[in-house]
Amino acid sequence: MSDLPRRVDIHEEGPREGFQIEPGPIATERKVALIDALSLTGLKRIQIASFVNPKRVPGWADAEAVVEGFNRRDGVRYTALWLNEKGLERAIALKERLSLRGTISLCASEPFLQRNQNRGFAENARVQHAQIAMFKAHGVPVGGISVMAAFGCNFAGDVPVATVIDRVAEGHEIAAAHALQVTTLSLADTMAWATPSSIKRVLGAVRGRWPELRINLHLHDTRGLGLANAYAGLEMGVASFDASVAGLGGCPFAGHKGAAGNVCTEDLVFMCEEMGVETGVDVERLIAAARLAEEIVGHPLPGSVMRGGTLAKYRGH
Amino acid sequence: MSDLPRRVDIHEEGPREGFQIEPGPIATERKVALIDALSLTGLKRIQIASFVNPKRVPGWADAEAVVEGFNRRDGVRYTALWLNEKGLERAIALKERLSLRGTISLCASEPFLQRNQNRGFAENARVQHAQIAMFKAHGVPVGGISVMAAFGCNFAGDVPVATVIDRVAEGHEIAAAHALQVTTLSLADTMAWATPSSIKRVLGAVRGRWPELRINLHLHDTRGLGLANAYAGLEMGVASFDASVAGLGGCPFAGHKGAAGNVCTEDLVFMCEEMGVETGVDVERLIAAARLAEEIVGHPLPGSVMRGGTLAKYRGH
Repeated sequence: MSDLPRRVDIHEEGPREGFQIEPGPIATERKVALIDALSLTGLKRIQIASFVNPKRVPGWADAEAVVEGFNRRDGVRYTALWLNEKGLERAIALKERLSLRGTISLCASEPFLQRNQNRGFAENARVQHAQIAMFKAHGVPVGGISVMAAFGCNFAGDVPVATVIDRVAEGHEIAAAHALQVTTLSLADTMAWATPSSIKRVLGAVRGRWPELRINLHLHDTRGLGLANAYAGLEMGVASFDASVAGLGGCPFAGHKGAAGNVCTEDLVFMCEEMGVETGVDVERLIAAARLAEEIVGHPLPGSVMRGGTLAKYRGH
Repeated sequence: MSDLPRRVDIHEEGPREGFQIEPGPIATERKVALIDALSLTGLKRIQIASFVNPKRVPGWADAEAVVEGFNRRDGVRYTALWLNEKGLERAIALKERLSLRGTISLCASEPFLQRNQNRGFAENARVQHAQIAMFKAHGVPVGGISVMAAFGCNFAGDVPVATVIDRVAEGHEIAAAHALQVTTLSLADTMAWATPSSIKRVLGAVRGRWPELRINLHLHDTRGLGLANAYAGLEMGVASFDASVAGLGGCPFAGHKGAAGNVCTEDLVFMCEEMGVETGVDVERLIAAARLAEEIVGHPLPGSVMRGGTLAKYRGH
């Protein structure tokens, strides 16, 4: 039917992203209700909690209770986020209920790294070596590289493609030093600088050098280009995307300065399925979950298809 | 820099679309204020009024007062909509202040035509012949064909590409019978059925048969795919788009059942300019106009870049 991928995998990040940024407080059982609803949609990977400092991110003070509370569904991988060894240890304590994977976390903008993690490229590489040792000590598999700010940065401006290539090369070197095989690369448009053209430019350069890598895109939708960027990714053969149900994490109407959600899961699923790209997800069930998310946070979320509806009801004519 | 068009033209339809659908009433001077703000953005074509039955569309009962009231700016073409001879006569009475063009108006869905205009394909063709005579009698130039519902229809379901081709062929026959040269074709995704794939499929077929036609896309954003569809159009060399400032005409949060705005002008301009496609439009001034539109209608409008902001301020670093 087309030269797009036959099938894509979607990593649902709505619960983790959304409950982190919402002013709340949101009851643990409501978080669990959303995760359970998402488990029934056909999504195969759902990020359900963030093991971060509860003083800094009060929305995830109940991470343990959420992970203990949801109904695990066979065939679904439940993932979690952590930022340091303390967080990883909290996740490992619940490893029977989670699917833990280590990542070599890089950033294409040194000013962003400096500002957010108080370290430059060289120091970050050292930290990554230490993290791999930590993953290994805990028996957590490591198979991928992630590069933040791969398409531009509010502190560094436009990011040259060569810088992204340098970071991915560095990721491979770090992996090689630990005899790890790199199979996946996640490129994040952390501050919503990407356009369809820059998606193609960066992906073209990366694919030219590492044709065997499976690439994932993490696209923020702050400027409305999320789905156009995802489509450009599909045209480049990308078959793995992060997304957020209802656009959770973004909230254009509630005055969250700079709150920029991921591309909306049900909008992405709708676009893919309408183009004949299988997602394995039931979009109507996903819309039900999106409405639940909106009800839980108590304000409108950015999703479009949850309002516009799918085309299924018109095709009966 | 890319194989996209070097430059695109945007036909701003926000005032006409928006004030038609808003519950209002909105004061004439506020409508004029928005048109005047849009005139300062660099937009070269702005649809500013609808000469329709005031009983059916009370929002445009003041069409004459709006057209008489705005400040005409040199180099900008101000257009208007009409649906019958009465409307055309009202527009012609103000022809010094308007840029009037006739169009051969076709529809790819016969059920939609039946439902909305109480006629089928054959009767619609007869009506178009009569309209051309009317345009000629009034000295209004006719140069284009438009096809509604070119990508799908809530009453007919999916629209085969062959049906679109048949309608465009019919439009050429109608034009030929009046010794008119067809130079432009506007394809409308009236009910938001298009995907990037179907945009390419339809455009590919049309371009294959009529390579010389200048194609315009009129894209509704009901399901969030507007910009992705516009990007697919750009990839097919489309260099003319209808758009609505702030997404006026759509209103996902105010309970307008089925209200589906055009793709948002400033989001489209932002995407184009970031990809090196010139629009001739000052996006910051357009954002100011979008904020004015939101203030005038008194509720949030769908635009993203008006909230997320452009990248200009970050590029100084």
